[in-house]
Parts: sequence; C-alpha cells; structure tokens
Amino acid sequence: MTGHRAYLDYNASAPLLPEARSAMLTALDAAANPSSVHREGRAARGIVEASRRDVAALVNASAEHVVFTSGATEAATTLLTPNWRMGRGDLRMSKLYVSAADHPCLLNGGRFPADDIVRVGVGRDGVCDLDALSAALAAHDRTDGLPLVAIHLANNETGVIQPVPAISAIVKAAGGVLVLDAVQAAGRIALDIAVGAADFVILSSHKIGGPTGAGAFVAASDLMMPKPLVTGGGQEKGHRAGTENLASIAGFGAAARAAREALSRIDGIAALRDGIENTIQSLAPDAEIFGQGAERLANTTFFAIPGVKAETAQIGFDLAGVAVSAGSACSSGRVGPSHVLKAMGRENDGGLRVSIGHGTTPDDIELFASALSGLLARRGGRASEAA
Amino acid sequence: MTGHRAYLDYNASAPLLPEARSAMLTALDAAANPSSVHREGRAARGIVEASRRDVAALVNASAEHVVFTSGATEAATTLLTPNWRMGRGDLRMSKLYVSAADHPCLLNGGRFPADDIVRVGVGRDGVCDLDALSAALAAHDRTDGLPLVAIHLANNETGVIQPVPAISAIVKAAGGVLVLDAVQAAGRIALDIAVGAADFVILSSHKIGGPTGAGAFVAASDLMMPKPLVTGGGQEKGHRAGTENLASIAGFGAAARAAREALSRIDGIAALRDGIENTIQSLAPDAEIFGQGAERLANTTFFAIPGVKAETAQIGFDLAGVAVSAGSACSSGRVGPSHVLKAMGRENDGGLRVSIGHGTTPDDIELFASALSGLLARRGGRASEAA
Repeated sequence: MTGHRAYLDYNASAPLLPEARSAMLTALDAAANPSSVHREGRAARGIVEASRRDVAALVNASAEHVVFTSGATEAATTLLTPNWRMGRGDLRMSKLYVSAADHPCLLNGGRFPADDIVRVGVGRDGVCDLDALSAALAAHDRTDGLPLVAIHLANNETGVIQPVPAISAIVKAAGGVLVLDAVQAAGRIALDIAVGAADFVILSSHKIGGPTGAGAFVAASDLMMPKPLVTGGGQEKGHRAGTENLASIAGFGAAARAAREALSRIDGIAALRDGIENTIQSLAPDAEIFGQGAERLANTTFFAIPGVKAETAQIGFDLAGVAVSAGSACSSGRVGPSHVLKAMGRENDGGLRVSIGHGTTPDDIELFASALSGLLARRGGRASEAA
Repeated sequence: MTGHRAYLDYNASAPLLPEARSAMLTALDAAANPSSVHREGRAARGIVEASRRDVAALVNASAEHVVFTSGATEAATTLLTPNWRMGRGDLRMSKLYVSAADHPCLLNGGRFPADDIVRVGVGRDGVCDLDALSAALAAHDRTDGLPLVAIHLANNETGVIQPVPAISAIVKAAGGVLVLDAVQAAGRIALDIAVGAADFVILSSHKIGGPTGAGAFVAASDLMMPKPLVTGGGQEKGHRAGTENLASIAGFGAAARAAREALSRIDGIAALRDGIENTIQSLAPDAEIFGQGAERLANTTFFAIPGVKAETAQIGFDLAGVAVSAGSACSSGRVGPSHVLKAMGRENDGGLRVSIGHGTTPDDIELFASALSGLLARRGGRASEAA
C-alpha cells in the first residue's frame, strides 16, 4: 500500500487548478463588496470584471453578455423559464424541449410546468434523435409562444458529443431558442458561441478546474433575456441579484483561461483515456463502453462489465484507492439506475464512469488497471463458487 | 500619508476572518463533489455537514433545518413564494407583508406578484409600525392562503433593531408565517430561533466575516418548506439543487463559530462606535444620527450633516483613506436616495454609513475623525465663499 490515490472523477468535480487557487487567494485578500464605490469595492469589482472577460473568451462571446450565477444549475433554472424579456417587451416561451439524456438541471425543466416539458429521445449511441426533435418542433404551436430547446453539448456520463450544428439548424428553422449546456464540453472541445449557433451557453467553474460556487450563462446577443430567478439588488445588470461570489468568480476566470490553453494538450488526455479503455477491454473482453461509436469527449469512459454491479464496483475501486463514479454525482448520496443509460435503451447493472483531466498521470491509470484486475478476480471467484 | 486605510463598511461586506480563510484553504484541498460516494466525496460532505452544525448553532436550531444557498438574496427569493409544501400537501401563502425599510431582497417580494406584496411602514426612528402591521394582517383574507411576513431583524443602513417578539406575537395571532432576515444581526446580537419565534431565519456568510457565496435559510421546524427555487439534482434534501459551494460553506461555518464568540466582545465594538458618534457630534453639532433613539446594533452609525452631500462625502472619505458607504451597497455602483431614510420620513442629502467589526482599531477611528474634520473644513470654506 503506497497511499497513492487516483482521482478519476473529473466530471463530478475537477481538482482545483493551482492558478485558480492562486486567483482565489488574491480575491480573498481583496474581500469587499464589488458594488461598493470605495477603493476596496472597486478592487473587488475589477476582479469580477476580469473574470467576466476570461469566461467570455472561453466561448468567444462578449464580456457584457456573461451573467455570473452560483453554478450551472442556477444558470439552467434561470434560462429554463416561459417568461422572457425582449427589449422592454415581454416574450413567452410556451414549451421546453429537452434531451432525455440531459443533466437533471435541464431535464427537470427549471421554471416550466411539468406539462410543458417535452423530452426528445436519444439513440442507442446517446446521440440526440434529430428526426424526433424535428417532429416535436414541427408540432409546436407558436400561438402561445416560442419553443425553447435545452440540450447538453457533451454528456456528463458518457462524454457523447451532440451534433450541435444540426440541432441548431433544426431549432432555427422552427423559430426556436437554443440553450446549450456546455458544462462538460468546456476545456475539452473548442467552444464558439457564434459557430455553435446557440443563443445561450451554460458553463460551470468546478468542472474545468475552478472552485464550486460559480457558473454562468452567456448570451449570444442582448436581444432577449430570461426574467431573473434570484431577485433583490441590481447586480449583474439586473439579471441576477445577490453580492457576487468574489473568490469563486476569480477562480472561475483563472480556470476559464486555463481551459482554453488545455485544448492544446487534449491529445495527451485522449491517449490516457485510450489506455484506460484498452485496459478495460483486455481485462474484460465482454465489457461494453457506452457511446463508443459516437463522437465523445477525450476524457470520459462509461462502461459496464456483465456480472459487475456498478455500485459495488465503485466501492471496490474506492477501497483500492481509485475514485470513479457509478453514474453521475448530481444528487446527494443517491445512486440509482442511470437515466442516461435508460434513454439509450441500455438497461443493465449500471455503468462505471472514469473521467480524467489535467492532473491525471500514467500512475493513476496503472492503479486503475490493478484495481480493475482485482475486482475481476473476485468476480471470477464468485462465479466459480456459484458454479 | 501613511498609506493606512480604515475599512469601515462591514455592513456591505466584512473582511474575511483568519479562521474562515483557513477553513476555506482546507476545503480547497479537499475539492471534490460532496455528492460523490468515494473517499474524496465523503471528505467534502464532512466539511459541508460540519459547517451546517456551526451555522445551526449560531441561531440555536437543528442542523437538519439548515438549507445552504449561494447567499442571503437567494435564501430570501426561495422563502418569499406563494407556493409551499406542508408534508406531502401543498400550502399557499396568498400575500406577502414586508417592512418598508427591508433590504431590497425582501422588499422586492421574491416570487410574489407585485400586487400581492403589502408594505408596512416604519416610524421616524426606523422601528416597524406595529399598529400598521396588526391592521394589515387583520385585513388579510385567509380564504386564498396564509399571510407571509418577512422583516429584517436589524436594519443594514441604520442598525435599528426591530421588536421581534412583538412582531412575532402579531404574526402568530394572525395565523401567519414569519421570515426573519438576521443578516446584519448575526454576530452582533444573540440569536435563538425559538426565542425569536420566527419560522425561518435568513443568514449571510460575508456579513459575519465569512466569504461571499454562501448563505442559508434556517427553519424552526420541518413542518413546512417553500417549493425550491433552484431545481435539478437532489442536494440539500431537495430544497436547493446544485453542487454545494464547498469553500464558501466551509468559511461560512468558521465565521458562524466566530460570530457566536464575538458576542462576548460586542462591548468593545460599541465603545468604538460611541467614539465615532462622539466625534461626529463634536465636529458637527448639527449632525443627525438616524435611529439614535431606537435600539440599534453596536457596530453601525448612519448619519447626515446639513450641507454635506453623502455621495460627495463618501468619495472624500475614500480619498482620505476611509471606506464608508453612502446608503447600502446592494446594487452595482448605483447610488440613489436611501429607501430606508424615505421610509423613516427623512428626506435630505442622504446619509453616510459607518459600520465596524472585528478588525476595527482606535487608529481607524482616528483616521475617520481626521477625514471628517477635513471634509467639514472644506464645507466651512465653501459656506464662507457663498456668504
């Protein structure tokens, strides 16, 4: 026992980057209210606005179109509302269209009544069913309002990347508004709000090596905005009340800068991930890697091995010093069947997710391999006993 | 010029306490998702739950009745809703009653339609008009739902403390629900959710020496809860979705511990504040200190001097190295007439707020005195020129 642990759960939360930590420490020393007009307040304001520029640059947007929130979930709840403003007028979205494999913060529909949420299926590879999306939007009745479409760019469990240009074309043809959840995609594929043709992009700090407590929604333009979710003071130009989370926003900005630079090193991540998948497939030839046929993020592997129950295996990996996830970690301690696998028509013992990033080393992959090997030996043992 | 600055704007944001900073650094090293079931996730969960106990202890509540939010504004928007749950059933609040001197996050009414918000006045001393509150609640029509009353325990601008036992008796007699904004009171007067007889208490981390990005609402019991504002994952027992802000929550817990201990040193704060008020009244005998006749927090002075425009004076203080506030700092850079002074029937050139705390020293008070003296000399100069 060396005491070395391999943290392979970046999609749940990435370890804090040194540059994000350093930015946070500077912000903690500047602790003041960014709305105060004295010198201390202006210094705090400067930190917030510098981060806003960094976050905007990550998706090639204008800084003034970034609205900071406490995280991606709050950003999603803010955007997923029937009630919008366009200039000084009101604008209504009458139905919300989500992907059945979306993260719960989209899937639950935010501020839409349950009856106004339409789920569009995905194929067995996890890719959005474009025909189903077209059909759903063709059936949309525009007399009550516009269609709002919210979909993840990359899946948090499988890493499967959605065909956003095709989705966007369908949404635009239907006169709809597109919200793109880029939480898992940021720092792993290049993002450009204009090229992606989304109207809004959702980002999270702690998935890209920043701290928890910060996220954002970024608008492609300032034509229309959702009515605010959190109300009170006039922060964030009236789009989100509450004193800005200075340290988290500072760390988010630093992480956003790092995420842009990380793209140049993504091939190294992919090589490590391929190493993981080779290990899985050589140790367990009957393993299935979900979404393997589709375009995927370079950092994510979601797999199942017949006879290996994911929740038990997750504990076994943990005891062996390897942090992986059985599905996603979005609700407290609750581990149930993955809605993503269900949406893909894959009912089984559940998948194990391995997700890596900036701090992952070949040693980590070796520890994973030895832990998996141990688990499979025990599976063999039990199978023999049962025979 | 010594370069020494006096930060006298604790009610906008208190400087970070060393113990809060230290707790945050520990949490940053533990960075993982508190909902993950592996060792790293459980360590993060442990930090969140330890902070929950510390925050509960600050108001003598049960830890399981604390719901963490991104701040007091989000907590207020969550609580101020017509739509509640009681057990498995729905519960409706048909009207919201607020104090005209409340913080904007209560005054704006959260999720209540504007037509269902009733403002109750305050006297010239800033104390809630109890007769007006009684009359408003007597007129409440219970057929549509219960009355929800939301009031600040201590005012952020004047420091005036509201007579909560009397308010609570009136609300209970009317069968209403009482939400108490204890953001400015915490750490300055003893809080006990049972003695205060509030149904819910709102707290903020960064007003008590913790970081921004964390707040909470605390329930006296688990009988009834507002329908969640931020939806998605099942965090905070389903009452608030989104990955917990680990570092801010850790710092909040440490600050809550410190705030309880700070009560034993509140006489020292009061002595410094009295020094400030003596200085003001000896340098400018025509100065008015708002709410001076009422019970006030020991750390706050809100004053006006005839002929001294608050916004200009605030800049003068800043240039002289003293951070004070012209009114509150709740909206970005916007400085307008104080709604609190308006509610008190005091229309004038605006007030200057001096608010102190754990780090304030006699040197700070001296710097304030010399800055005020300089300002008044210039006022004298201009008055002579005009004469």
